[in-house]
Amino acid sequence: MTTPSTQRACVVLIGNELLSGKITDTNGPFAIAGLRALGVQLCALHIIPDQLDVIARTVLAASNEHDIVITSGGVGPTHDDVTMAAVAQAFGVGFMDHQGLRQRVKDFFGDQPSRVLEAWMSVARLPEGAELLWGQDEPWPVCRVRNVHILPGTPRFFERQFGVVAQGLEASPFHLRSIDLKTTEGHLAPLLTRAAVRFESVDIGSYPSINPHERRVRVTLESKDASQVEEAARFLLDGLEGSMILDDVEQ
Amino acid sequence: MTTPSTQRACVVLIGNELLSGKITDTNGPFAIAGLRALGVQLCALHIIPDQLDVIARTVLAASNEHDIVITSGGVGPTHDDVTMAAVAQAFGVGFMDHQGLRQRVKDFFGDQPSRVLEAWMSVARLPEGAELLWGQDEPWPVCRVRNVHILPGTPRFFERQFGVVAQGLEASPFHLRSIDLKTTEGHLAPLLTRAAVRFESVDIGSYPSINPHERRVRVTLESKDASQVEEAARFLLDGLEGSMILDDVEQ
Repeated sequence: MTTPSTQRACVVLIGNELLSGKITDTNGPFAIAGLRALGVQLCALHIIPDQLDVIARTVLAASNEHDIVITSGGVGPTHDDVTMAAVAQAFGVGFMDHQGLRQRVKDFFGDQPSRVLEAWMSVARLPEGAELLWGQDEPWPVCRVRNVHILPGTPRFFERQFGVVAQGLEASPFHLRSIDLKTTEGHLAPLLTRAAVRFESVDIGSYPSINPHERRVRVTLESKDASQVEEAARFLLDGLEGSMILDDVEQ
Repeated sequence: MTTPSTQRACVVLIGNELLSGKITDTNGPFAIAGLRALGVQLCALHIIPDQLDVIARTVLAASNEHDIVITSGGVGPTHDDVTMAAVAQAFGVGFMDHQGLRQRVKDFFGDQPSRVLEAWMSVARLPEGAELLWGQDEPWPVCRVRNVHILPGTPRFFERQFGVVAQGLEASPFHLRSIDLKTTEGHLAPLLTRAAVRFESVDIGSYPSINPHERRVRVTLESKDASQVEEAARFLLDGLEGSMILDDVEQ
């Protein structure tokens, strides 16, 4: 369902507060839209708790199965911030002080009482072999271990650091065509099945109207190969009665 | 971090359209709030594509690791609706026509052309051993296989069927206390760590203000054991300077 040039990504959102609903996640929708705009295929999104073993297991599987992994959350100075230690465990590497980041913490918090400074020093402990990606005018780097980008959970910081990650990816957009039809999924199913078999590189979706009194289905055709989208659309339009077609939009 | 009586749940949202951002998910937030109100602990939420092997693998792991699994999506009549077949594969059981549901499809769609009726008949194919949960006044049952509840992705139907699942669960609420403090996470970290060690059954969270110019942190204490929440709150309040405390709310 994907052309060879498409990068495959996984997003892992870490935080008990997201699962208990105390905080409504916005990093997921932000990452979904951001990866989409870059032409990166998001293959899975997981929301998991602040548990070291769960994070380690999820990150390792995500890293093995995807080109890019982005995590959010669990990187502050408090007891439930265990993402860095979990990533170190996932890859079986050490977890150690980074001297450059310790200096950066001193620059930020040097005027604070020593126990405050010491708490913040925990954010300068990184998995061994971590790379730091410094964005322009960004006060703090993105930490990357292999293909895993470890971002903070606070939306303002997540969004800025996502921008740093995005700068390292080559954008290659998807082509999307949406056709709105006055019919039901049941009527469409045989034709869509034939189209799906015939145009393997095109991702075909069908979405019935939310309004139950409306006989209306949106069919979407999507691929990085614009000509395949075009051919699949023609195949579908040829198989439909003209009176069904309400709208046909290329994006 | 959980008392023995707490049921542990996993939510699996299925659909390429959620990962590509063509549709913004609302079933996740609905399930998070709904499980919360029931006192069920949501341990993970996964968004995965309409791929049979991925669904089967995710559902099997979720079923093994949790008391309750709820899936959303992939149960209509089109080519990408493979959730039922995937659940059958996950548990290594057959995938077969359910005569009662075939009759129900005939009742709904008997007046439609035969190819439409046949497409809809696919929704009467269930994993072997599936139970049907009929809600009052609900036109279609929830399909349950072992501890996996298979719900539709369309939000209106998902929400109704979630209500049917909820009726089968015994509600047992969480006790939550939120304390707003004029300080930073760095200042709080040592005290929170001591509290986390001392009150193991209490889930302690700390959430810095979104506004960077505000020195403000919300600390949350949460458990099914109200007295433990009370004791942990007293422990924290005793360890804080009174001038830090902006607000203290029990829910």
